[in-house]
Amino acid sequence: MTYAIIGTGAIGGYYGARLAQSGCDVHFLFHSDFGHVREHGLYVQSVDGDVSLPHVRAYADTSSMPRCDVVVVALKTVNNHLLPSLLGPLLRSDTLVLLIQNGIGVEEDAQRLLPGAWIAAGMAFICSAKTGPGRVCHQCFGSINLGNFSCPDASRMDALVADLCRAGVQAQEVPYATARWKKAVWNMPFNGMTVALETSTDRLLANPATRLLIREQMLEVIRAAAALGVRGVEPAFADEMIATTDRMTPYAPSMKLDHDYGRPMELDYLYTRPLRLARQAGAPMTRLEMLEAELRFIAAR
Amino acid sequence: MTYAIIGTGAIGGYYGARLAQSGCDVHFLFHSDFGHVREHGLYVQSVDGDVSLPHVRAYADTSSMPRCDVVVVALKTVNNHLLPSLLGPLLRSDTLVLLIQNGIGVEEDAQRLLPGAWIAAGMAFICSAKTGPGRVCHQCFGSINLGNFSCPDASRMDALVADLCRAGVQAQEVPYATARWKKAVWNMPFNGMTVALETSTDRLLANPATRLLIREQMLEVIRAAAALGVRGVEPAFADEMIATTDRMTPYAPSMKLDHDYGRPMELDYLYTRPLRLARQAGAPMTRLEMLEAELRFIAAR
Repeated sequence: MTYAIIGTGAIGGYYGARLAQSGCDVHFLFHSDFGHVREHGLYVQSVDGDVSLPHVRAYADTSSMPRCDVVVVALKTVNNHLLPSLLGPLLRSDTLVLLIQNGIGVEEDAQRLLPGAWIAAGMAFICSAKTGPGRVCHQCFGSINLGNFSCPDASRMDALVADLCRAGVQAQEVPYATARWKKAVWNMPFNGMTVALETSTDRLLANPATRLLIREQMLEVIRAAAALGVRGVEPAFADEMIATTDRMTPYAPSMKLDHDYGRPMELDYLYTRPLRLARQAGAPMTRLEMLEAELRFIAAR
Repeated sequence: MTYAIIGTGAIGGYYGARLAQSGCDVHFLFHSDFGHVREHGLYVQSVDGDVSLPHVRAYADTSSMPRCDVVVVALKTVNNHLLPSLLGPLLRSDTLVLLIQNGIGVEEDAQRLLPGAWIAAGMAFICSAKTGPGRVCHQCFGSINLGNFSCPDASRMDALVADLCRAGVQAQEVPYATARWKKAVWNMPFNGMTVALETSTDRLLANPATRLLIREQMLEVIRAAAALGVRGVEPAFADEMIATTDRMTPYAPSMKLDHDYGRPMELDYLYTRPLRLARQAGAPMTRLEMLEAELRFIAAR
């Protein structure tokens, strides 16, 4: 299949480079890195083996890109209002739009902006970072779960999973809503708390008071998912996520990096939207509402 | 009446100096300032008129002080385990111990440490600060509410109120539990939130998200007080406290000052104790429990 990567950073750069390396026809959209990559190529330093692509199909504008089978959106959600103009030139009636983004409600809003588009969610479990123009460092993990939001053609989802697996990426299809809410169980506590307390995941878990708080926040997300009728997000998943994080290297989630580098935080999809849904469903996430208020204060400071 | 002031800082220094100026026999305990005050005296710069006391009865140790009618304890609660040894030399069987301290549960614990002592609570509404050895700056307010915890002699409470009023201090007796919990309505949100978000009262109220959060936290305290059977702490009191704080000059509560100057925060009586009581009474203060966890993390950092 042919691929367009919209947002060639830590996430889009990693998965796009793997697909290109395996022989897929991949078209990369760059912003500030365009000139550098056209001249020097794209490089991924990876724990699973480096990827060196001295020549890539690089673009500075989607209007010059071809229509593709799959469009991978790996932008920050704060730019999602740009999706119609950005993606217009890339879509055929059967193009699959894969949103590798954080939060709850992203697909619903994208669907409203792109009526008729085939949309899927990508939940990436990866530690990677952009380390320079055209350079990505992949530190650990790397799997991706795909949730079908509105793709009527199951074979298109299968083909995407197959392409990713062939490219050396651990990929699988999972139930959409369950996967999004499971990711929120980790994302909502850790993204905000590392910002609010200017710290990292390991320190939050090393302190008995914040360890307990993180667990309570996870249980709030789990109760909200249940109230919203999302199946398969069980209370035991909180302890599973804490154990997983205990085993992880000290980690700064994406919101912490965004805040540290003066970029806007993805508060709307990571907090405001799921908090509103939970409250409407009669399962308010009180501690995470408080965390959102603290983050709004920090963002305005 | 004769007075002993235990802890001659921003609070003890102010009220003690007013009492001494009005002619009361006041004995001041000093720590590091003892030598300086014995030589140069005690000075209060005050919006209500300065107090200059070139000669005060200054002590470095309670064992050299006389037994008094009233012992005013104006120490931080983190030192309250020292009360038996500190106060032993000062108490007669009818000495009134006035604890001008922050939090919930202070009097219960002091009573356990000083069985038989006559104990009252002092709730000071004052902005004052120690600005140098033997120097206190009183910026605004200054009233004090007195709550009778275990004084069997009503006339002793009356005499204290009269002495304070004669000294130019707005003083009145109020119902003990109501007054303590009303103070907690302001103290619990503002002390911790100014530390957690490194800010001041005015900025917390200027941001719509934290303004709402502060109000929710106040309502948590009000619900807890009701569940504990404390009368007269009505929901409307939250809006009253917010309006009062809107009118105040930008303010750093005592816990913020303690944290800024590297002193221990009074977490036990300001958070742990009232949080436990509220949870036992079936009215957990969820947002303030989260705030305590954040403060425990910050304190350990």
